[in-house]
Amino acid sequence: MASCVELLGWDELTYMPRGGVDQRGRQLAYLSGLLHDAATGDRIGELLSRVEDSDLAAEPESPSAVNIRGWRRSFRRTRRVPRALVQEQMSVATAAQQEWSEARRNNDFARFQPWLEQIIRLKREEAECLTDGGPLYDALLEDFEPGMTSARLDELFAALHAQLKALIADLPKRRRTHAGILRRNFAMDRQRIFIESIAGDLGFDFERGRLDVTTHPFFSNIGPGDIRITTRFNPSDFSEAFFSALHELGHGLFEQGLDPANAGMPSGQCQSLGLHESQSRFWENCIGRSRAFWMHSFPKAKEMFQDALHDVRFDAFLAAVNHVEPGPIRVRADEATYNLHIFVRYELEQALLKGDLAAADLPSAWNERYRDVLGITPADDAEGCLQDSHWSSGQFGYFPTYALGNIFAAHLNAAVRSAIPDLDPLMAAGRFGPLSEWLTEHVYRARAFDDATGLVERICGCPVNPQVLTNLLRSRFVEV
Amino acid sequence: MASCVELLGWDELTYMPRGGVDQRGRQLAYLSGLLHDAATGDRIGELLSRVEDSDLAAEPESPSAVNIRGWRRSFRRTRRVPRALVQEQMSVATAAQQEWSEARRNNDFARFQPWLEQIIRLKREEAECLTDGGPLYDALLEDFEPGMTSARLDELFAALHAQLKALIADLPKRRRTHAGILRRNFAMDRQRIFIESIAGDLGFDFERGRLDVTTHPFFSNIGPGDIRITTRFNPSDFSEAFFSALHELGHGLFEQGLDPANAGMPSGQCQSLGLHESQSRFWENCIGRSRAFWMHSFPKAKEMFQDALHDVRFDAFLAAVNHVEPGPIRVRADEATYNLHIFVRYELEQALLKGDLAAADLPSAWNERYRDVLGITPADDAEGCLQDSHWSSGQFGYFPTYALGNIFAAHLNAAVRSAIPDLDPLMAAGRFGPLSEWLTEHVYRARAFDDATGLVERICGCPVNPQVLTNLLRSRFVEV
Repeated sequence: MASCVELLGWDELTYMPRGGVDQRGRQLAYLSGLLHDAATGDRIGELLSRVEDSDLAAEPESPSAVNIRGWRRSFRRTRRVPRALVQEQMSVATAAQQEWSEARRNNDFARFQPWLEQIIRLKREEAECLTDGGPLYDALLEDFEPGMTSARLDELFAALHAQLKALIADLPKRRRTHAGILRRNFAMDRQRIFIESIAGDLGFDFERGRLDVTTHPFFSNIGPGDIRITTRFNPSDFSEAFFSALHELGHGLFEQGLDPANAGMPSGQCQSLGLHESQSRFWENCIGRSRAFWMHSFPKAKEMFQDALHDVRFDAFLAAVNHVEPGPIRVRADEATYNLHIFVRYELEQALLKGDLAAADLPSAWNERYRDVLGITPADDAEGCLQDSHWSSGQFGYFPTYALGNIFAAHLNAAVRSAIPDLDPLMAAGRFGPLSEWLTEHVYRARAFDDATGLVERICGCPVNPQVLTNLLRSRFVEV
Repeated sequence: MASCVELLGWDELTYMPRGGVDQRGRQLAYLSGLLHDAATGDRIGELLSRVEDSDLAAEPESPSAVNIRGWRRSFRRTRRVPRALVQEQMSVATAAQQEWSEARRNNDFARFQPWLEQIIRLKREEAECLTDGGPLYDALLEDFEPGMTSARLDELFAALHAQLKALIADLPKRRRTHAGILRRNFAMDRQRIFIESIAGDLGFDFERGRLDVTTHPFFSNIGPGDIRITTRFNPSDFSEAFFSALHELGHGLFEQGLDPANAGMPSGQCQSLGLHESQSRFWENCIGRSRAFWMHSFPKAKEMFQDALHDVRFDAFLAAVNHVEPGPIRVRADEATYNLHIFVRYELEQALLKGDLAAADLPSAWNERYRDVLGITPADDAEGCLQDSHWSSGQFGYFPTYALGNIFAAHLNAAVRSAIPDLDPLMAAGRFGPLSEWLTEHVYRARAFDDATGLVERICGCPVNPQVLTNLLRSRFVEV
């Protein structure tokens, strides 16, 4: 039934006419109620107790043990949240997402504000049901990053923030950039064909997936043979659709790579968004902005966009896709400044949840933090606090997983490069198979997704440390 | 929950990747099981018994009385069909539709045959559960046309068949036709824009609906604000997409015109497919091929398709959209020969269900009947017995409602033209409002949809009679 909810959510963001929003809210509320009933029945608790001491749980990383832990965790959490609250959240979120989308289109924060207030109230209620006494925020964070705490995040992020500040200060000054190349005219139908072609090269199977267009790119797992990703197109910006698509493609490849034998079970799905984001950020940045990747892909791009790229040399193009410049929009941010966007959201969503910041004051707080952290002021709320859909759908505690994902991605990048020393020449020749195989074995089929930090540390053989990411960025942007 | 099933079905036929078919079968089987449980609970029977003798049922055409009758009818029928059979049907139909689609694409009846055999077996089982002793076919027909029997259909169709034979014999010989005009090059994106524009003129609200592309056109009611229609495009045939779209638009306008206050209840949905088809056929033919409609629409068409239509005069275009010529494909058939396609299907599906015809013998039986009834031989099975999706989704008893719809449409056409004497000049001026209002009042909001024949007779003030249709066709095709 969860997969039906997933499809209803996908349709809502892709093809549903505006008039369908009330009915969609009712449908989702109804199905979430049924799901909640199914997930909280006493029978589930009895069955779990029976298997928890059995042989099935003996080997901690066996699929059955992972399933038992995952089901227990979700049973414990789901039982704590009343059915009525779940249904109200589902129904408010459906309407709020439509209102957010309109508010963003018309740069009208006032339209979204009452919905944001409702969502904060509901999330606070939910967190109060879920908390074991720690910060309310941690109770929500647990949904996206099992085992993670805000205390640990504060520590990781403080270190990363300081390192990034130093890195940005060290960036070569008045470096000649070619970013304008990517703002020429790129016909949308050709962009789409190009993206589909590259996605195919990287291993995305369109027999078992699709690509659609939405305001805010996302991915959706309807079933093991039905993985959908979306992007948004801008005819005068090559990067927007391409790197958004590559990002979602990273998620999509992860989902297509999961073992279908465990589909729908904890051992067959990734419960850590940090780990999931590590895959989207890995493909978007570690691969998608690398010299080797473009050695294969640039000739294809030149062929597809003859007008826009006829006079563009390889090095200029590579410099353009690696252009560093703080901007107001997270999803368009370069690798060096991306995490700064996350730090602002992480701080503000904690303040909203605690009640230290009122929804009405969000726009001014947002703009102030952007000035302090990124040194820029958004032109309006549409490119300020209305730019992301997460809060409109109640996803508080989601944002930090992006920065965590960047840290994980840097670790995995280091690991795959030592495992496959000739990765660059392989990619330059268009051979992405060995990379896929490594990821399938070590990440997609790792199964013990309930301890992402532990998994990454085991794969890489070292403790998780933001310095690995900073070193990677430094090698790309400072020491070139 | 029925509306969730509806969305899953819509997605399956529009956007689902092929790899999603197994999961979709499981999802639909699961939800149908839940729906079946909800619809067959003893509690429903108790509640129905309590209200059936109450004031709510006193006025037979009140919404509450219509609801009580509709729920009782569906409760009685649903209780007779075992849950396992419903789930098996749903799951087989999902796979069979994909197989049919592939079989049709590759002209490979053998691929579809085992699925058709399974479906026939399941439909026979279902009919045996439902029958009160009459023909098995009637037990299935009841799903699509409440109160109708094959005995009554035999009578109506025999009369209509004889009248049509005479009419076709009387068609002007060697009449100069201009059908080639519509086989020029009509760019698909322009066709789509043209259809959306005409749909808007006719009152379809795209805020509460959409138009998509599928192999077999259909409509879907996801909710009162979310009515979806589909069509298929052929760049070298204007008629294919346009008249398919107009057909589905007729369904869509009906659904958008229903009273949202009764949405989801028997009084807020049309249980008679004959009546529903009367609306699609009314817009497709009675309106969509009329002189007045094209006086408004032809200048728009000329503007949109300047290349294809620059040298085409109005009368030639009108003759082309009214061209009569027997062909192998039902959905492309002209008004005069359309019902002959139905008679073949009606006869064959009864024979398949009875066991008088084996699935393996369908192609030869189909071709033989086409020779006898329409005087043509399909080139292959793709344009023969594989052309329609109905049997692949288990819709036995659906086809006769198309011919019934044509009969109803002719009656309603006569009624609206006597109610609005200046309908033609209004339409010629692009004013479709009065027509919409009449349909809304007399058809869309009639509510007592459980007795379609009675409803049509009351609206028109005369008994249902195929002669009204034959007279209309004669006035269009013989006496011009």
